[in-house]
Amino acid sequence: MAAMRVTVLAGAESAPFVRELASLLPAHDLTVVASVARDQWVHGLKRTPDADALLDGLRAEPSSATSRVAEELAALGAEPRWAHDDDATLARQVLRTELLAAGFGLAEVTAALAARLALPATVVPVSEHRTELHVVVTDAGERRAVHVEEHLATGTAEAESLVVVSTDDSASDAALAAVRDADVVVLAPVRPTVTRTPLLRAGGLRDALAARPAPLLAAPEADDPLAALADPLELPVTTVGSPADVAAAVGA
Amino acid sequence: MAAMRVTVLAGAESAPFVRELASLLPAHDLTVVASVARDQWVHGLKRTPDADALLDGLRAEPSSATSRVAEELAALGAEPRWAHDDDATLARQVLRTELLAAGFGLAEVTAALAARLALPATVVPVSEHRTELHVVVTDAGERRAVHVEEHLATGTAEAESLVVVSTDDSASDAALAAVRDADVVVLAPVRPTVTRTPLLRAGGLRDALAARPAPLLAAPEADDPLAALADPLELPVTTVGSPADVAAAVGA
Repeated sequence: MAAMRVTVLAGAESAPFVRELASLLPAHDLTVVASVARDQWVHGLKRTPDADALLDGLRAEPSSATSRVAEELAALGAEPRWAHDDDATLARQVLRTELLAAGFGLAEVTAALAARLALPATVVPVSEHRTELHVVVTDAGERRAVHVEEHLATGTAEAESLVVVSTDDSASDAALAAVRDADVVVLAPVRPTVTRTPLLRAGGLRDALAARPAPLLAAPEADDPLAALADPLELPVTTVGSPADVAAAVGA
Repeated sequence: MAAMRVTVLAGAESAPFVRELASLLPAHDLTVVASVARDQWVHGLKRTPDADALLDGLRAEPSSATSRVAEELAALGAEPRWAHDDDATLARQVLRTELLAAGFGLAEVTAALAARLALPATVVPVSEHRTELHVVVTDAGERRAVHVEEHLATGTAEAESLVVVSTDDSASDAALAAVRDADVVVLAPVRPTVTRTPLLRAGGLRDALAARPAPLLAAPEADDPLAALADPLELPVTTVGSPADVAAAVGA
């Protein structure tokens, strides 16, 4: 049987699902489209929590989750305190930032990191551009927009609405190609607001999904404290329960 | 007795001496002027090995010397491999780089790090500017200049001469003031080429030392693989053997 091209739309919370799926499809081409809604610059470094969790989840051996640098930054009084990444993630932030500064795009950099880790899947960001999810809260009588990472980490006042802050909201060529050229597209377990909503707002992605002849294979939603603010999915789906269901659909 | 102002000229190799001296002079004002000759930018981060070793040495409790981020960078194939800093140092590099990018000078940033660590001494860089020591080597028939850090870490071909690569070779105001205003100036145990030579080439520093009425208190030289290339000291000195000798001279 020819290798099938399988594309998975995912966020950090999808990492266990994606890891298991990769183990079930060793003979197929797996591409993971990662949300960038939680990305941000902290301490001059580019954080990409979704892509990083997916890269980590796909490694043969998980990296040990020490956070020595984050502890030292806290000892130095560096803000924000809630940006507490583990050391392996911080190393990728350093290298990613260096490569971005050298002029490479986020998709190239993410692909380079995946290649250097010899992962069994390609990981591509849904956008090449800064496209960050903020939530609007009313805090001490004042309305303000807070980055979703800060909101999730510190539990600010209740989120009233979403704002996507973007320099260019188009989907990356790599993500659009991964959806267009795939034999099967899977929506991994994702938080409907934190991950799915900004992912499907990436310009061109929803149209590319709607243009496909076969429905999306959709896994159950992940828990989301912001679920009430999600965009409706409004795409034809076939429900799948587990990575094994996807493997069966692929014929693996 | 009034507090005396004691200034120490130092490099990374002086850290144990400076630590002991600080413990002997708790009631006096201690300022450490750190060489910047080994500074460089690696992975987009500002390394300052001399200031960092001195900051570390002055801490109440030494930080544990894990190198998780450096190990992960090596696993990612990041070059140069020889820039293998421990995690606490890397955290300071991240914060230093962030503050430099925000427009603060190296002296302000170094003072801020020392203050946040509640150190018993002030640490000031001898220069605010990029002033890096290179050595000239002949490698496979070709002469080239190599950063002293690379030379020391990888043992390139034999060093033939020194080149200080500088955007502005003047000493920092903080270093000049520390020498001018001190009651006692000490030359800590330093490598004569790697540390002392570029330190005393910082514009204005040698004149400020020569203008002092009392001689420099000079500790024994540290071992230096490049000793043959050192500038002569050519300053009047009184030899001291240990931090206790300095404390006796200060009257502590």
